[in-house]
Amino acid sequence: MSVPGRLVLLRHGQSTSNADGRFTGWADVPLTAHGEKQAAAAAELLAREGIVPDVVHTSVLRRSIRTADILLEELDRSWVPVHRTWRLNERQYGALTGRVKREVRCEVGPVRYQAWRRSLTVVPGPLPDGELARLRADPRYAALRGGGLPEVESLADMIARVAPYWVDVLARQLYTGRRVLVVAHGNALRALIAVLDRLTEQEVEDLNIPTGAPLRYDFDRQLRPVVGEGGYLDPDSARVAAAAVAAEGQA
Amino acid sequence: MSVPGRLVLLRHGQSTSNADGRFTGWADVPLTAHGEKQAAAAAELLAREGIVPDVVHTSVLRRSIRTADILLEELDRSWVPVHRTWRLNERQYGALTGRVKREVRCEVGPVRYQAWRRSLTVVPGPLPDGELARLRADPRYAALRGGGLPEVESLADMIARVAPYWVDVLARQLYTGRRVLVVAHGNALRALIAVLDRLTEQEVEDLNIPTGAPLRYDFDRQLRPVVGEGGYLDPDSARVAAAAVAAEGQA
Repeated sequence: MSVPGRLVLLRHGQSTSNADGRFTGWADVPLTAHGEKQAAAAAELLAREGIVPDVVHTSVLRRSIRTADILLEELDRSWVPVHRTWRLNERQYGALTGRVKREVRCEVGPVRYQAWRRSLTVVPGPLPDGELARLRADPRYAALRGGGLPEVESLADMIARVAPYWVDVLARQLYTGRRVLVVAHGNALRALIAVLDRLTEQEVEDLNIPTGAPLRYDFDRQLRPVVGEGGYLDPDSARVAAAAVAAEGQA
Repeated sequence: MSVPGRLVLLRHGQSTSNADGRFTGWADVPLTAHGEKQAAAAAELLAREGIVPDVVHTSVLRRSIRTADILLEELDRSWVPVHRTWRLNERQYGALTGRVKREVRCEVGPVRYQAWRRSLTVVPGPLPDGELARLRADPRYAALRGGGLPEVESLADMIARVAPYWVDVLARQLYTGRRVLVVAHGNALRALIAVLDRLTEQEVEDLNIPTGAPLRYDFDRQLRPVVGEGGYLDPDSARVAAAAVAAEGQA
């Protein structure tokens, strides 16, 4: 058996919705100019650490796709295969989609607000019918029309949709020694980390993923992480940014 | 059997090397600002004709990759699967790579110049050793290190490398009713058209593909083109631009 490859997880750069302090979910918002710069800066970190990717995975949302495109251009690796899958989409935030976090927190109080954002199983209300119909008509979700299109998701739901991608695609590529980059979303990465680190419920709730900060995983031959919850390439900045994510909506 | 899908062929937008009147081949040059505009304009034509792609194929050269990225962004279809393959690369122009066409034509005369550019079998000299070593070290061509990396290619050589991609990948997707976009290069598209239209040697020699002009193919159930050599979405502009390609190096 060959030595396992390396995995780098990256949350997309700042989106317009991040900048506005909104819940985004499956809304397909673009990066801000700052978000584009974060993507280029992440490329520089990867180049410096010598872990440029052989293969890249993104969601089907443009903020992750564009982050990957910019990063690959900066690395002179636009030719690397990129796989785009709804399984790496952000959490379907249902009725919270597009809402300003601060306003939601004022409205429902800090306990329910935090449960909606971070708990494993608590969900907000479903997506309004009109929005759901719009997603059903979107060709990028055509394969989900047979009933798989979620109206709302808990983090547990996300783990259920991310886990097959880990087993069938990512783990397989890592076993064959490839350097794999996943450019996805805060909750998609929380779900993925929950799977590959076998996190407890409390650990999942405490996990916050900053935008644009590459998180590196090395594995042993059983594909267990050598360091639990991986290691940020720029740990000091990542720590500050993760604390800011944890505090969102409190300002 | 389902009805065959549609194919659109698109040569990348103008590159810096096109703008300078140089042979480009496998040199990985970027688009010019004009080339980026051509990519966006091609998207508009596709949208107007209602033939937005379900799946996209590019070479591993940035001028085709970037053209596809811009086009998909314009169509709000960045999530469409994109496959990148060396089989759709531009012709390996060997010793001509990077040379100014006008100077080459002066040096060797119009007959040999035209044979090098357009004939089925005539080839210029091979790539200098240093350039070949550089390509051998390039990870994007790692799979070709076992001897498949060409020092120079005739159009016949290109047909031999493009044909398997037509049979194994493109034709298969068309048979299942998909709308397929191929964003590639002048000679890669000549080779592909030679295969799917079963062109004679003379027809291949007379074929010139302009940059940024979408060329549409519809097929019958045996996957034979309904209209030989397809139909440009903007035929008047394409005719003028193809004549300019035919006359390159004569100014």
